[in-house]
Amino acid sequence: MTDRKDRVTALDLPMVDPLPEATAKYFQVCEDKLGMVPNVLKAYAFDIDKLNAFTAMYNDLMLGQSALTKLEREMIAVAVSSENRCWYCQVTHGAAVRALSGDPVLGERMVMNYRTADLTPRQRAMLDFSVKLTKASATIEEPDRQALRDQGFTDRDIFDIASVAAFFNMTNRVASAIDMQPNDAYHAQHR
Amino acid sequence: MTDRKDRVTALDLPMVDPLPEATAKYFQVCEDKLGMVPNVLKAYAFDIDKLNAFTAMYNDLMLGQSALTKLEREMIAVAVSSENRCWYCQVTHGAAVRALSGDPVLGERMVMNYRTADLTPRQRAMLDFSVKLTKASATIEEPDRQALRDQGFTDRDIFDIASVAAFFNMTNRVASAIDMQPNDAYHAQHR
Amino acid sequence: MTDRKDRVTALDLPMVDPLPEATAKYFQVCEDKLGMVPNVLKAYAFDIDKLNAFTAMYNDLMLGQSALTKLEREMIAVAVSSENRCWYCQVTHGAAVRALSGDPVLGERMVMNYRTADLTPRQRAMLDFSVKLTKASATIEEPDRQALRDQGFTDRDIFDIASVAAFFNMTNRVASAIDMQPNDAYHAQHR
Amino acid sequence: MTDRKDRVTALDLPMVDPLPEATAKYFQVCEDKLGMVPNVLKAYAFDIDKLNAFTAMYNDLMLGQSALTKLEREMIAVAVSSENRCWYCQVTHGAAVRALSGDPVLGERMVMNYRTADLTPRQRAMLDFSVKLTKASATIEEPDRQALRDQGFTDRDIFDIASVAAFFNMTNRVASAIDMQPNDAYHAQHR
Amino acid sequence: MTDRKDRVTALDLPMVDPLPEATAKYFQVCEDKLGMVPNVLKAYAFDIDKLNAFTAMYNDLMLGQSALTKLEREMIAVAVSSENRCWYCQVTHGAAVRALSGDPVLGERMVMNYRTADLTPRQRAMLDFSVKLTKASATIEEPDRQALRDQGFTDRDIFDIASVAAFFNMTNRVASAIDMQPNDAYHAQHR
Amino acid sequence: MTDRKDRVTALDLPMVDPLPEATAKYFQVCEDKLGMVPNVLKAYAFDIDKLNAFTAMYNDLMLGQSALTKLEREMIAVAVSSENRCWYCQVTHGAAVRALSGDPVLGERMVMNYRTADLTPRQRAMLDFSVKLTKASATIEEPDRQALRDQGFTDRDIFDIASVAAFFNMTNRVASAIDMQPNDAYHAQHR
Repeated sequence: MTDRKDRVTALDLPMVDPLPEATAKYFQVCEDKLGMVPNVLKAYAFDIDKLNAFTAMYNDLMLGQSALTKLEREMIAVAVSSENRCWYCQVTHGAAVRALSGDPVLGERMVMNYRTADLTPRQRAMLDFSVKLTKASATIEEPDRQALRDQGFTDRDIFDIASVAAFFNMTNRVASAIDMQPNDAYHAQHR
Repeated sequence: MTDRKDRVTALDLPMVDPLPEATAKYFQVCEDKLGMVPNVLKAYAFDIDKLNAFTAMYNDLMLGQSALTKLEREMIAVAVSSENRCWYCQVTHGAAVRALSGDPVLGERMVMNYRTADLTPRQRAMLDFSVKLTKASATIEEPDRQALRDQGFTDRDIFDIASVAAFFNMTNRVASAIDMQPNDAYHAQHR
Repeated sequence: MTDRKDRVTALDLPMVDPLPEATAKYFQVCEDKLGMVPNVLKAYAFDIDKLNAFTAMYNDLMLGQSALTKLEREMIAVAVSSENRCWYCQVTHGAAVRALSGDPVLGERMVMNYRTADLTPRQRAMLDFSVKLTKASATIEEPDRQALRDQGFTDRDIFDIASVAAFFNMTNRVASAIDMQPNDAYHAQHR
Repeated sequence: MTDRKDRVTALDLPMVDPLPEATAKYFQVCEDKLGMVPNVLKAYAFDIDKLNAFTAMYNDLMLGQSALTKLEREMIAVAVSSENRCWYCQVTHGAAVRALSGDPVLGERMVMNYRTADLTPRQRAMLDFSVKLTKASATIEEPDRQALRDQGFTDRDIFDIASVAAFFNMTNRVASAIDMQPNDAYHAQHR
Repeated sequence: MTDRKDRVTALDLPMVDPLPEATAKYFQVCEDKLGMVPNVLKAYAFDIDKLNAFTAMYNDLMLGQSALTKLEREMIAVAVSSENRCWYCQVTHGAAVRALSGDPVLGERMVMNYRTADLTPRQRAMLDFSVKLTKASATIEEPDRQALRDQGFTDRDIFDIASVAAFFNMTNRVASAIDMQPNDAYHAQHR
Repeated sequence: MTDRKDRVTALDLPMVDPLPEATAKYFQVCEDKLGMVPNVLKAYAFDIDKLNAFTAMYNDLMLGQSALTKLEREMIAVAVSSENRCWYCQVTHGAAVRALSGDPVLGERMVMNYRTADLTPRQRAMLDFSVKLTKASATIEEPDRQALRDQGFTDRDIFDIASVAAFFNMTNRVASAIDMQPNDAYHAQHR
């Protein structure tokens, strides 16, 4: 096997070559704004339909309109990814929590044990719901939703919390299944 | 609370009204072909972007081009949903396994314990990988992928198995989080 | 191995031949009333003492005098068998729940996730106790019994709930240990 | 609550009074042979049909004809009861292992961790099967049965191992559900 | 392999020979007071620094000044060791509970299932904390500490409870890792 | 409660004041060499005997003579602490892995999922043993030790691996029990 840091995934699925114009442009935007094309995009780029389906859902959930702040969505992402011990998502979204919060320690807490963070009761309820949904989704019932409402979350907010937590339960598993490696640049960011 | 069978989810998130023309047409196609609009579509229809992102990914994975047969994808869907005890997905995709296989008992086996089914070694490996990915994704390593290759699966097939299994780990959690109810019609189908 | 559907268990333990007169008569009653001899009886019929011990206990618990209705006892049977993922018992007692309740969906809910059913608080407490007894019997303590008393159950009722739940923890394991197959007829019944 | 050592179970279910003649005689035999009536019999004696069903199955399994020695059946009983942490059965059957083996340490090993005992490969396979059946019965498959056959066990022996292990998964749960207390005399026996 | 009862551990690590004078004197004190040198001391005696580090910590925790009685510390030791199913520590500290309490049954209860003992609420809280710390330390939070304070424990007592429970989580693992065998004499003591 | 970052633990146990001369000197050495007194030392300094017992064992295991390199011992420390999700130990020993290896990514891999690191088979075996010992110590048997010997580890090395892994199972639990906070300086080190 190639050393992990020199390849994107464990599968031999090269990107479409040449990339369609829209994809090439999107990747260029990533380079310009982030200084890299995140490896998850390269991993999906063997099939442009799959790439587009992934980015559409990702962008809607993580960047779209929601009463949850982007930081809160990233906190969910990391708490869920920590529970599933997903290497790719802990690294990349851990960096996002550090960036969005301006608090490197918060990123570490989300990775290592979110229960040790000094959170508002609202944020704690949000993460508790997300982690219970991750570990024991069959036992989520009305009192779990009510606990969110009691913290001021609306039904739409509950949908958003559930959707983000559920989405990372998907991507964690895709990433672990194919041993997806994050770009090296994330590790040193926002420390 | 309203009786479960008379509502789609536990959240008060009504469908966009009126539906955009494309959505209305899509729902009509469902009515015509399936005799119903599956409740999962109604559940997402409070936000058309979310609905479209969901259906794009669903249709690519479950109906798009793949070396996995549609029945095999549905078998993964049910084995994963059984592991997560998702009411909505066991009902709807259990019906799909019954329909596509012409074998009502196979649908029941996928719901109750897939290990009791007389599967080919190839299909068994596919489901074992999917269920391990569901329960312990952090422990998936190269030997797990190799076990699939040893049964003749290509790297692209591995991606497809992982993607379908991962997708239902997402939808199971959305459905459980909001107590999504399947349309009644599924229960009696293909018995 | 023979295909599962053409044999009763994975063990080569033929029925006593000829059957004793009382057993033959009992099996004939089954044929007359149910249209079949349930495979569990055939599985035990290699040793008539074991068969009689099993049927005596089964009939006392499931058909004998109790404040629990026969439907309630079958609901416990299925919820426990689902927890243990016993193929034989989910199929056969799932059919019994459908038959006794006249509600096919209730049978499916007991199999797939009993928490999704619209139960009375009394029935929910009964199933919660049964499932906790199944998963973590060492942690059952006085508050668990009190929760049943708070729903109006007497000490005798608690004994009956415990006995039925415990019995299926036995039969689930016998059935799984020898790969017992249910008669095909159950699958289509009461759908 | 009464102190545990002064009552048989946590339920208020007094014995039938007077006991039927056959039961009274059976209890007298216990007194004569064991110096006590085991509390499990008193616990069931509120209903003679239940008592008889229990003793018939118990006596068939633990005292009836089998290629498994009585000590081996007791070893299964304790290993299973330890897994379920059943107070009543660990005490009473732990004493039986000490008595039948003449080896007090073996009884302790079965209670504390059967993997630490110097067992024959045959006995180890028997206990491994019993404990797997206890913890994860849904995953028992043909290779598990074959592992027993490889140690010389016949299909009838497999049935006996499974039946004894399954029986204690029942009685452990009845005992824990009602907080059944063993007679004090067991503790000091065969030390 | 040598029969377990004739060796101290599974590793070939003989004691320093001759023992340093201080160690020899300490072992002689053990012989004089206990009638034996506990095998754990022999197991560590291949390296006197390790032996001394172990005994210093052990003696401070189990024999040093604390508001917890020596019996209470031994109860924690056994409840934790039972959770981890450590053969060495259940045997040796089970004997200590029997000795210090004068109640052989209490020792058995700590080994088999501490929840079945008639404990004071204070002692129950102490053991519940210790067992939760053993099984799910990452989930210990302020309410767990408060539950101890509510029973009258001071912050220093909480430290002592945590330290003793944590210490046995260490020694249980050392003992299991090297298959440490207790001296035979413990088994029959204080029955 | 005080904000976590402004206190050492959740317990009100102030350091002995003034510190004994030897302790004061030791703390000064820490300041000089590390630029701080690690909080774990402050946490134990309410009782100098406890502090000394802890440091004696820590220094012997982590800094004393062993065929395991200091980096390997730190890798065990982090893999175990990750399994137990101990905030204090993941932060502090994660920093040590980064420092000793000169590879910041290796530190992250030990925290997030050690299975994703490109380890030698020898190091992987060492960590697999350590993590199994952490999660299921009762199931460690001769084949687990043999797997280490097969990688060239001696019996003394096995003792060292077991001791380090076991030690962090202790300290993880002490730290979680009292909510011990690492010094802030660790987070940014060796990134």
